[in-house]
Formats: sequence, C-alpha cells, structure tokens
Amino acid sequence: MAIQLGANQYGKAENRVVRIIRDTPVHQIRDLNVSTSLRGDFADAHITGDQSQVLPTDTQKNTAFAYAKLHGISSIEDYALALGARLLEATPAAEEAEIRVEEYAWDRIGDHDHSFVRRGGAVRTCVVTARRGSATVESGVQELTVLNSTDSEFKGFLTDEFTTLPEADDRILATSLVATWRHSTTDVDWNASYDGVLHTVLDTFAGTYSRALQETLYAMGTAVLEAQPGLTDISFKAPNKHHFLVDFAGFQVEGLENNGEVFIAADRPYGLIEATVVRR
Amino acid sequence: MAIQLGANQYGKAENRVVRIIRDTPVHQIRDLNVSTSLRGDFADAHITGDQSQVLPTDTQKNTAFAYAKLHGISSIEDYALALGARLLEATPAAEEAEIRVEEYAWDRIGDHDHSFVRRGGAVRTCVVTARRGSATVESGVQELTVLNSTDSEFKGFLTDEFTTLPEADDRILATSLVATWRHSTTDVDWNASYDGVLHTVLDTFAGTYSRALQETLYAMGTAVLEAQPGLTDISFKAPNKHHFLVDFAGFQVEGLENNGEVFIAADRPYGLIEATVVRR
Amino acid sequence: MAIQLGANQYGKAENRVVRIIRDTPVHQIRDLNVSTSLRGDFADAHITGDQSQVLPTDTQKNTAFAYAKLHGISSIEDYALALGARLLEATPAAEEAEIRVEEYAWDRIGDHDHSFVRRGGAVRTCVVTARRGSATVESGVQELTVLNSTDSEFKGFLTDEFTTLPEADDRILATSLVATWRHSTTDVDWNASYDGVLHTVLDTFAGTYSRALQETLYAMGTAVLEAQPGLTDISFKAPNKHHFLVDFAGFQVEGLENNGEVFIAADRPYGLIEATVVRR
Amino acid sequence: MAIQLGANQYGKAENRVVRIIRDTPVHQIRDLNVSTSLRGDFADAHITGDQSQVLPTDTQKNTAFAYAKLHGISSIEDYALALGARLLEATPAAEEAEIRVEEYAWDRIGDHDHSFVRRGGAVRTCVVTARRGSATVESGVQELTVLNSTDSEFKGFLTDEFTTLPEADDRILATSLVATWRHSTTDVDWNASYDGVLHTVLDTFAGTYSRALQETLYAMGTAVLEAQPGLTDISFKAPNKHHFLVDFAGFQVEGLENNGEVFIAADRPYGLIEATVVRR
Repeated sequence: MAIQLGANQYGKAENRVVRIIRDTPVHQIRDLNVSTSLRGDFADAHITGDQSQVLPTDTQKNTAFAYAKLHGISSIEDYALALGARLLEATPAAEEAEIRVEEYAWDRIGDHDHSFVRRGGAVRTCVVTARRGSATVESGVQELTVLNSTDSEFKGFLTDEFTTLPEADDRILATSLVATWRHSTTDVDWNASYDGVLHTVLDTFAGTYSRALQETLYAMGTAVLEAQPGLTDISFKAPNKHHFLVDFAGFQVEGLENNGEVFIAADRPYGLIEATVVRR
Repeated sequence: MAIQLGANQYGKAENRVVRIIRDTPVHQIRDLNVSTSLRGDFADAHITGDQSQVLPTDTQKNTAFAYAKLHGISSIEDYALALGARLLEATPAAEEAEIRVEEYAWDRIGDHDHSFVRRGGAVRTCVVTARRGSATVESGVQELTVLNSTDSEFKGFLTDEFTTLPEADDRILATSLVATWRHSTTDVDWNASYDGVLHTVLDTFAGTYSRALQETLYAMGTAVLEAQPGLTDISFKAPNKHHFLVDFAGFQVEGLENNGEVFIAADRPYGLIEATVVRR
Repeated sequence: MAIQLGANQYGKAENRVVRIIRDTPVHQIRDLNVSTSLRGDFADAHITGDQSQVLPTDTQKNTAFAYAKLHGISSIEDYALALGARLLEATPAAEEAEIRVEEYAWDRIGDHDHSFVRRGGAVRTCVVTARRGSATVESGVQELTVLNSTDSEFKGFLTDEFTTLPEADDRILATSLVATWRHSTTDVDWNASYDGVLHTVLDTFAGTYSRALQETLYAMGTAVLEAQPGLTDISFKAPNKHHFLVDFAGFQVEGLENNGEVFIAADRPYGLIEATVVRR
Repeated sequence: MAIQLGANQYGKAENRVVRIIRDTPVHQIRDLNVSTSLRGDFADAHITGDQSQVLPTDTQKNTAFAYAKLHGISSIEDYALALGARLLEATPAAEEAEIRVEEYAWDRIGDHDHSFVRRGGAVRTCVVTARRGSATVESGVQELTVLNSTDSEFKGFLTDEFTTLPEADDRILATSLVATWRHSTTDVDWNASYDGVLHTVLDTFAGTYSRALQETLYAMGTAVLEAQPGLTDISFKAPNKHHFLVDFAGFQVEGLENNGEVFIAADRPYGLIEATVVRR
C-alpha cells in the first residue's frame, strides 16, 4: 500500500470587502466577507515544495478587492461568478474555484446621502463553484432567527426508558435558520430571487401550525420550490432554540401562574434539525 | 497592617428572560438578558462562611423571571426598578441592588399575530442602581454600527519619530457605538426617551462633518443633552472601525483606480475613543 | 416533476457532559461536549407531522448523560460507539447514528486529590457513525496552534497582474490545526493512538523545513500514516495565521532594524489550506 | 446650565504584538495583545476639531511595535511601563497613559529550537497607569478555570417566597477566575511575583473546604497578600460555572444512580461573585 495525496484545496478566507458606490451624491454600500479557494492539480506544492503552479492566497485576496471595482457587485452571486472565472483563468492547474460570500445589510440613515446604520439580523450568502465552462450557484441566508409564540406542539413521539419529556400542546418554536438553495441555471435575477425566497420562508414559518420543527422545515422548503421553478433544492439547518416555560409552582405567591408567558431561552444543548427538500 | 475584605458584590448574570404578552390574539414579545447583583454587608459569607444573610443567586434568578409576570415589562428601566426594589426588600443586609438589562428587538412577520423575526443591530440597555429610598437609572444602546462614506478627514495631528500615517482628506468613518446616558429623575417616559436619543445620535452622526471621531462624539453628546433636558450626561465608547483604502497601485491593469471605492474592513487593532458630555 | 423530502437528520447538539470518577479519594474528570443525530426513514415526521418514529432530541440528551455512567468514558471513541449503538437500538426507523464528541483537557492541581485546572489548548474530537452491524470512527484534534519562528519560506509561485506579494526567505509559519484521521477497525487503543498522532504531528511540524504550508501538511500526514498502520487517511484544515513583519523603515530612530523579530499577528483574511493524505 | 466635555480618553486597542528573540539558535516567543490610551487636555480635538495635540492612535500602534524591540519584553509589566513613559513624553497634552497587556503562553515543542505550541488556559495580564513622575501597576490573570469535584457545600442561606434551591452538601465548585492585584512599588521581579500569585491561588483553591464561592475567594485573597508583602490588594471576578447534577430518577433502569458522578455544565445564567481583599 502506498501513501498518497488525496483531496486538497487552498485559498484566502474572510476578505472583508467594502465597496462604496459614489457615482452620484447618493452613495451606496456593499459589505462583504469573501473567501476563495482553488482545487486542481497542486500535488507538486505538497510533495516537492514546488510552488510554480500556485497562485498565492495573497493574489487571490488582491483579485477579490480589485474585482469589487473592475466587475462591481450588482449581487453577491454575480460578483462571485466573475471572481471564480478570473481565478480559473489565472491558474492553469486549477479545475475548480469555490467562492463563498456573506453580505451584511446596511440601512440608510434617514434621507442622508452617505450615512448608514448596519441592519443586523439575516446575513445573505452564496457559494459559487466555477469550473472551466460551467458554474453552479448556491444562494442562502443565515442568522435568520424566527419565533412563533403559539401554534406549535410536540407529542405522540417514540418513548423508551430514558424518556422524561412531557408532551407539549402549546410551546414556543424558535430557530436561527441557515438555508441554502441551488439554481438550475446562472441566468437568474439574483436579488429578486433572494427577496422571494426570504419572503416565502418567513410567511410559511408564520402561517404553519407545527407538530415538529421537521414539519415546519418541510413546509417552508416545499413552498419555496413551488414559488421558484428555477430552484432545484433547498436545505435547512435549524437549531431548535429551546424556550422552556419557567416553573412558577414553587413560588409562594398567591395567584401567580405562568400560562405560556414567561420562558427561559436556553443556550445548550439545542435540538438540531436538518432537512433538504428537492425537486425530482 | 491587617488584611481585610474590601468591595464585594454577588448576583446572577445573564438570565435570558423571554416574556410573551398574550392577552389578545395579537401577541407581543420582550426578549431580555437580565443580570442582578447585591452589595452590602456580606462579610460573614466571606470570612466565616455563614450564608444566613445571603439571598442565593438562584433566588435572584427566580425573582427576575417571576417579576416579568408580576410586574411586567413596559420598559426595561421600569422592570429593573421594580426588580431592584424587590431584591433590596428581600435582603436586609443589602445596601444596593444593581440590575443590568439588555433587550433584543424583534419585528413582527408581516401581519401575522404571533410570529416574529429577530431584528439584529442595536441592543437597548439599562443599568439601575437601587438603594433604600432612591435609585439611579442609566439607559443605553450598544452594537449601534454606523458609517459615513465621506465628509470625514483626519489631519493636522501631532507627529513624532514613529509617525507614518499620512493625512486623510476623505475617509470612511465607522464605529460600533456603545452609548449610555443618565437621567436626573426616575419619572421618565423611558421608551420615548430612548427613541429620542437614538434618533438624535443617528441624525447627528449623519449630519456632522468630522475632523476626528472625537469631534463627532462631542457633537452627538451635545445634541442629545440639548434635546432632552432630563439627562445629566451621556458617555460614548466608540471603536474606530478602520476601513483602509485598498492600494491598487501595484496592479498591472490599465486605468484601474481606487477613488474611495474599495476598502478593507480591519479587525484589530482599532482606535478606541471614549468621551462623556455633561450638563453642569 | 415532484417535490420530495431529501436528506435529513436530527438530534441534540452540544450536551455538556461532565463525568467525575470518584471510586477512590483521587478523583478523575472527563469533560465532554456531545452531539448526537439520527438519520433514517423519518419522512412522516416531516410530511404528515406524525412523530411516532421519532426518538425526541430530549431523550437523546438523557441517554448521553446516562451513558456517561452506565457505560463510562474510557475514551471518547469508546463512549461514542456505545452511545451510537444504543440510539440505533432505541429507534427502529434510524439507519445511522452520528455521535460527535469534543473533549476538554484538565490538569490536576499539584498533588490535590479532587482539584483541577483546565488545560486549554488542543481539543480532542471524534465522530462515530454507527450503523446496524458496523461503525466507522474518525478521531481528531482541533485548536492545536503551532508556530515555527524560522525555517519557512514561500517563493517561486505563480504570478499575474494582481500579484504584489514579495518572495519570503524566512518567515513565521503558524496555524491553528484541525486534523481528523480514520481508523480501519474499531479494535483500537484509542488513547494511545491519539497520543501517538499528536506526538507525530507536533514533531513533524517542528522538524520540517517548509516551502509552503501545503508541504508541511503533507509531511505531517505521511508521517502519521507511516507511524500508525491502522489509519486509512488523515485530513488537515490549516488556517495560515499570518504574522507580518512590522515595517520599521519609516521610523526616525537610528539603528532600529527589524530582523525577523517583531511581527503583527493578523486576524483576517487568512490563508486556508486543506489537504488529505491517504493510504491506498 | 452649560453642556461641557467630561472625562475622555483615546488610544489604539488590541495591537497583536509578537516578538521573537533570536539572538541564539534557541528562539523565544512573547505573544501580546497591547492596548494604549491617553488621558489629558484633549478638549480642542472634541470641540473645535483641532488635532494638533493629538498623537494619532496609529502612532501609538507604531510605538507599541517599535518598543517590543527598542525596550524588549522581559515582562509585560516592564514593557508597559516603558511604553507608557514614552507615550507621555511624545504627547505634551497627556496627563496619563494607560497600557493594557494580555500575554498568551506558548510551550516549546519537545527540544526543538524554534517551534512552539500555544498553551491555552490562563492569560497573564497587566494594566499600567503612567503619570508624569509616577506609575501604578496592576498585574493579573484571566481564563484561569478551576474545579473542585468535592469539598464544597452551600446551605444555611436566606430564603423568601421565591426560593426553590435545595441545600447542597456536596457539589462541584467551578469558576473561570479573573484576578487582578496591585503592587505598592514598581521595583518588582514581575515574573517571580506572577508565578507566586498563581501558585498561591491554585493551591488555596484546591486546599480550602468551601461553604460558598465567597469564602473561597476571601481565602485565596488572604493567602496571596500574606505571601507577597508588596501587594496592596487583590480583586476577583468569579463566575460560578454551575454544574448541575443530572437527575436519573426518571430513567427506568434498575440500579442506575447518580452519586455526584454525572453533571451538566450550564452556560447561562451563572452566579457572578466579585470580591476584593485589601491590606490596610
């Protein structure tokens, strides 16, 4: 048996690219976190130490910043497609370039022309895998924290000798969603698609009576695929952020009851539900 | 010389209190992080191990959750005042109770009755110091990240043999503000006051030409104290979140220039500017 | 085309299991972070909301704690194998149970019998995938931060019009290693194997002249597979934690030079090098 | 009443200074996080925008790196004293310079000359406040996480109508200590003093039967002041990192008991005990 190099990739992670569009007195801002990596035949770099086929991660970084101007950022997907194509062009040994982008949203302050306040909340994401002659695009969102204060139950579950959980008729359902969805083509209005998915996810989360977080994820996934025929699948990672009803029974206060009103938000452990919904 | 017990305090930190108001089909949510501590004559607990004057931190926790229902949370300041008074009442040895609260904002999803999405961005805070017969209230905000894409300079500064910074005529000014302000009474419309301060801070940040972050802080502080006569002072902690213009000079691309358009957002080190503005 | 449920799994993440062995006056401690998840035929839970085949994540949590006593923790791999088998036994619909464990190391304080100080540094990990009749074990380590202060270069790399990096003859090489390796059987002395891999990784890192982080990873991987015939492969994720030489040229201090002595440790961006070495 | 500038300071936070001593083939490493700030008459910078008395935070950064070579780092206290004096010298308007340093420990890998692995665990700290003609030094440690698996109780405490905590005869006592202590002079063997305090803190923690975390803190503080006559006081911030005994009562497993053997380490809320011990 021989010892050999297996899968490998390299790149520059977390380039914090901030682009100000100042062509008019009313400025715009795009605030990105960009990671690039290259896969291909880089065996010499590992085995003999020969770096002649390696485009340095420092150059990948420079290219990410330069392309914020040269190509611009109409959407993170469009920018990542251009950046991925460029890195392949510059690196003959590379077979794939993977570009990951997170975008932080800012709001304009009042009607001021060049002043912004960071919005917080959901972070838009994409992962573009560029190959010579093709590319696949996965769009996504993370840190989308949602909560239903009723219309959620959990009962009828499997039990064993370690089961102590009582059935719940009415509980809080909360999760900090990570969702990713893939497109069947790269000919997409990326911003409109993102806004559409976000709307469908939120509206379905809010409108669905939940017998488990699994059911809610499936409902959201189905709704998104129905609304956007260009999507091939959507995947969710959903930590079940437990909100435990605080037990008031031990308090010596007459008439004090907790009817689904006061909860403790727990950190760890947390349920972690993951599901993909696909179009076949 | 003798070795003695000096300043001391104890309490329960970071109780994650979530309160659902469900008196009508349209629910409301208040999402808090509550820390309590007691100061007073607790020498025996330290020196002889006698805990008879110590209200356990576990009981403080229980009280924080119970008061979310018993007293309610019309504002974090009002809730903290009630909780502080209660903890003093329950603990004869205590001279002061300090209640710290952070509040995370949620937005309603569409027009759904009981569904929410976490807003992110600015976190509202307060610190109430309750004494027997009096109390002081400090209100505040943190993680209020703001950015001006122009109208900021930095020049004419002191130089020495270690100076390498060039003067800047036009730079990005960005900071993640922590602001705290104190009230001269406890007879305050807390929510209206908070909204007012936030509006003044944002509007002044946006509308002020800045010759240094110091000047911007002073302008914001002055504007807040002028707008709200009931405040005695306001303090800012403002990390100068550097955005460095990316140097395109080394790139071999004809016509490629960076006219204040592409920046790298740096993590560390960062400037840290702190200032208080007071009414005398 | 139809919309269908795709891949899915669910479980309880980050159970913080602390086990004290107190059979003798000299206590021992095992401090774990345990995550479990189940994969199998859980379509009904998603589609119809029927939870009758679902072992709740709360029960998974209970089992993780109970097994710390019932089975014990001679090693995290041994514990995870038992826990995975149990979860499969309790859940007929499950085809696979994945158990992830992180272990935090503690040192005894002096020669005290029941007092410990947390060691910090490297965290031992494993991922066990249990199936009916078989199981695979991946062991690992993370947060293993290492640094060579010389014997590292980077030159002879590919260049393009965005290249600005100068060649480096002598630089700091530093990384916070994540390494994972797989075993060909489950009949292993897990603790001895872990200690051996760690020793080989550290010794090879220290003893290898590096022409790129890639070369160092390959050398470490080869050395580990040579030393432990029972391993099938080893994978590294290695952020290149850049230490930039501080430029003293602009300082007006006679004789002040920086000959590889003063560096700034940078946060972001960072190189990210990933490689697997396999036995074929 | 007039609105005026109150307390203010400015500086550069979190300079990640790494110093390699390479005077011999056996290298040494000092790995610091350095924050500087200046206080004094900087009113013009705030009010009129005149920066002529302001030594830029960028220059403070440069000085921190230059002094790692010019003065060297025999201890963080000695380095901070030199850096503080220098910043006062360079800034006529400054009355005080505050230098904060955190030091991360590294271990040598085997007997290799220039290879290191980060130790993790306790971080050594200092805060030097330099004035014209004097300076005060506070030394410290943080992230010193310690645990006693027995010899800790908590009972006899004050109760009220919200009390639900049972008395505990035998519990885990664990905390992640932050300790700071002040020196009566600056003529100190800083490294020996630090090692001595750490030894006394650990040994006293381990050797003290605890009726409350307060009693343990007081015992540690007293022991340190007795051991080191040059210290004026020592302060502790001690989060009570709760380890809750897992309730096995609900499990249907014959003979399964939890006799102080299996705990869940909780995140939030946590007790927070703070105490100072002083020499008078």
